[in-house]
Amino acid sequence: MSVGLIEPDVLLPIKGICLASVAAGIKKNKNKDLVLIELAEGSSCAAVFTKNKFCAAPVTLAKQNLAAASPRYLLINSGNANAGTGKQGMIDAASSCELVAKQSGCSAQQVLPFSTGVIGENLPVDKIATAIPEVFNQLADDNWINAAHGIMTTDTKLKGISRQFKLQGKTVSITGLSKGAGMIQPNMATMLAYVGTDAAVDQSLLQECLEDAANLSFNSITVDGDTSTNDACVLMATGHAGNTKIVEKNADYLQLFNAVSEVCLYLAQAIIRDAEGATKFVTLQVGSSRSVEDARQVAYTVALSPLVKTALFACDPNWGRILAAVGRAGVEFDIDKIKVYLGDVCIVSNGGRDSAYTEEQGQQVMSQDEILIRIELNTGDCQASIWTSDLSYDYVKINAEYRS
Amino acid sequence: MSVGLIEPDVLLPIKGICLASVAAGIKKNKNKDLVLIELAEGSSCAAVFTKNKFCAAPVTLAKQNLAAASPRYLLINSGNANAGTGKQGMIDAASSCELVAKQSGCSAQQVLPFSTGVIGENLPVDKIATAIPEVFNQLADDNWINAAHGIMTTDTKLKGISRQFKLQGKTVSITGLSKGAGMIQPNMATMLAYVGTDAAVDQSLLQECLEDAANLSFNSITVDGDTSTNDACVLMATGHAGNTKIVEKNADYLQLFNAVSEVCLYLAQAIIRDAEGATKFVTLQVGSSRSVEDARQVAYTVALSPLVKTALFACDPNWGRILAAVGRAGVEFDIDKIKVYLGDVCIVSNGGRDSAYTEEQGQQVMSQDEILIRIELNTGDCQASIWTSDLSYDYVKINAEYRS
Repeated sequence: MSVGLIEPDVLLPIKGICLASVAAGIKKNKNKDLVLIELAEGSSCAAVFTKNKFCAAPVTLAKQNLAAASPRYLLINSGNANAGTGKQGMIDAASSCELVAKQSGCSAQQVLPFSTGVIGENLPVDKIATAIPEVFNQLADDNWINAAHGIMTTDTKLKGISRQFKLQGKTVSITGLSKGAGMIQPNMATMLAYVGTDAAVDQSLLQECLEDAANLSFNSITVDGDTSTNDACVLMATGHAGNTKIVEKNADYLQLFNAVSEVCLYLAQAIIRDAEGATKFVTLQVGSSRSVEDARQVAYTVALSPLVKTALFACDPNWGRILAAVGRAGVEFDIDKIKVYLGDVCIVSNGGRDSAYTEEQGQQVMSQDEILIRIELNTGDCQASIWTSDLSYDYVKINAEYRS
Repeated sequence: MSVGLIEPDVLLPIKGICLASVAAGIKKNKNKDLVLIELAEGSSCAAVFTKNKFCAAPVTLAKQNLAAASPRYLLINSGNANAGTGKQGMIDAASSCELVAKQSGCSAQQVLPFSTGVIGENLPVDKIATAIPEVFNQLADDNWINAAHGIMTTDTKLKGISRQFKLQGKTVSITGLSKGAGMIQPNMATMLAYVGTDAAVDQSLLQECLEDAANLSFNSITVDGDTSTNDACVLMATGHAGNTKIVEKNADYLQLFNAVSEVCLYLAQAIIRDAEGATKFVTLQVGSSRSVEDARQVAYTVALSPLVKTALFACDPNWGRILAAVGRAGVEFDIDKIKVYLGDVCIVSNGGRDSAYTEEQGQQVMSQDEILIRIELNTGDCQASIWTSDLSYDYVKINAEYRS
């Protein structure tokens, strides 16, 4: 199941980007598992990757290639993460890029590889080789939904969104896809997102735009605190919209940044809405903090507390657990000045349960599918929001019994 | 259920310590819920407390009293944590101490209060007042097992141990109790431990002895990462064994420290063996680390990973999840040099699955009740061990449905 997540009927094509999605036989269930994205010459491309030390071979190679050349192709497979595969993993990732280079005439460094799926099995490069002509054949600009299908693993719903806005009188389009149903799937590795726009943007500004947008979205969600070996997010800009290239942080940049942020936030929240076993979509909002770091620390401590997460699953307004989690976050505050709200209901003030609080009020908030937990630290004027899911029987079932 | 935990048949009396345990009606089930410990005049008393900012009223008061005077009494109630109770909580904790002072003739500052149980409800001081004469009546030196019963909340088994050793030709005895079945119970608050010895030890050395022993035991266990508002551990030394008072870190001190450490480790591990929903008792051992902090960081990251914990529950040798958790621990190492073992079986080497590893070997280790996960970082010569439990359906059930 998922919480309030609606699949898109249509995703807008982006001028200068073609996509294709085929079934190469990497997934056992014969679903689409190989996606190719082609970028028009002259496109800019930015990316952020997992910080896990055990990052997968394709992550290592994608970083190297991105630093060395302007990407023309992204090759993404699902069903196999090519992670924990040692030296053979690097050889296989490189071979995949060479297959694309050979078919297209670009250099292998102009190809970025991505893999998601089972950890610890070697990538079936032969199956990819067989499928390469077909995936090139299928390249078209209206294949975003097909591509979204091709990157899914245990996702129960397709995740994608499009936005348009005016820039210098020109219409700029943005379309994005994501996959991931837990920070790590049952032995699957995990979050991928691809966002394309036809805006014209300087490469280094595009990278900054993506990093800032990712911090407010993909880096502000958590299911279980586990960071995958394969996480990656790519922002592509073809420049085909016709705007004068954005080269500084002016009003145009801000418009673009806002649109990219909105798309990234939607895609990130979609992953939480489809999280493993999720029955709740939970927003943790920490305000009046002396720093963003403090606010994030408190928000993550509450969001990751198994006791808070099981209480959310049980629709139980267990304010004692929230208070205990805030108390162990390692952040300075005065316990008499902190306030905690469930939705609009104040549950904690003056170092204990708010005197006006009633169990019925808390119960009413907790019975909803989407829940806001707001914490006011009263130590400053910074704030942060993160999003998470609850901890249900199904989370344990999905993660304990996926082999059966 | 619990993993390999056997209740003690007998606990040794400690000369100079008397105990009593009665049912004061604080627990709804009429079980024993009020414990009094009396220390002979001239005893030393050391304590460590929760670092949670939202510590309970009795924790605040116990710290103050310990700093102000030499304790003669410990008053412990179960069934109510007196946590999240604001100013009234402090008044109630102080009233409890005054009741003991009045009955015994000592000062209120010579009484240390402790509470464990439901958070956010006011302490029923009237019930404690009614029970005070009876609990004084019952004081006897052979009541350790009764006292262990009196501090239990959702524990399924009583936790206690005794040890004896020779010091300067004299027999020294140590007896300890603990309670706690999760770092936080279902809205219960939580770990308490009381260790008594008849050794004669200087007060400040006793405090150092307890802090060092607690770091290797109570501060090296985790069920779910949650730290309670009420955690406390007390070490009492009456000096009645007849040894010359230990006033420096000599061989005598080391003997005492080793015995106290052994008792604390047993009591801490007993809490994990009886952890909420536990089906596994898991030791995380991180070796060849450049620092103890690094080793503990890696051990805790693996121990707290819900994906590792659900794999343990499922008896699934899912090395990819262990590797991914190690990789996100934020500790420096060379992924090609790290080794991970399940029991004696090497599962990860050279940056991926060990070439000799077979699924059958891993399966054989994971099917046992007690599991050792050993990680060699190969960055230095420090090490650390911590202990944890798995994440089962019953953990979710106990924590989501305790109201029903």
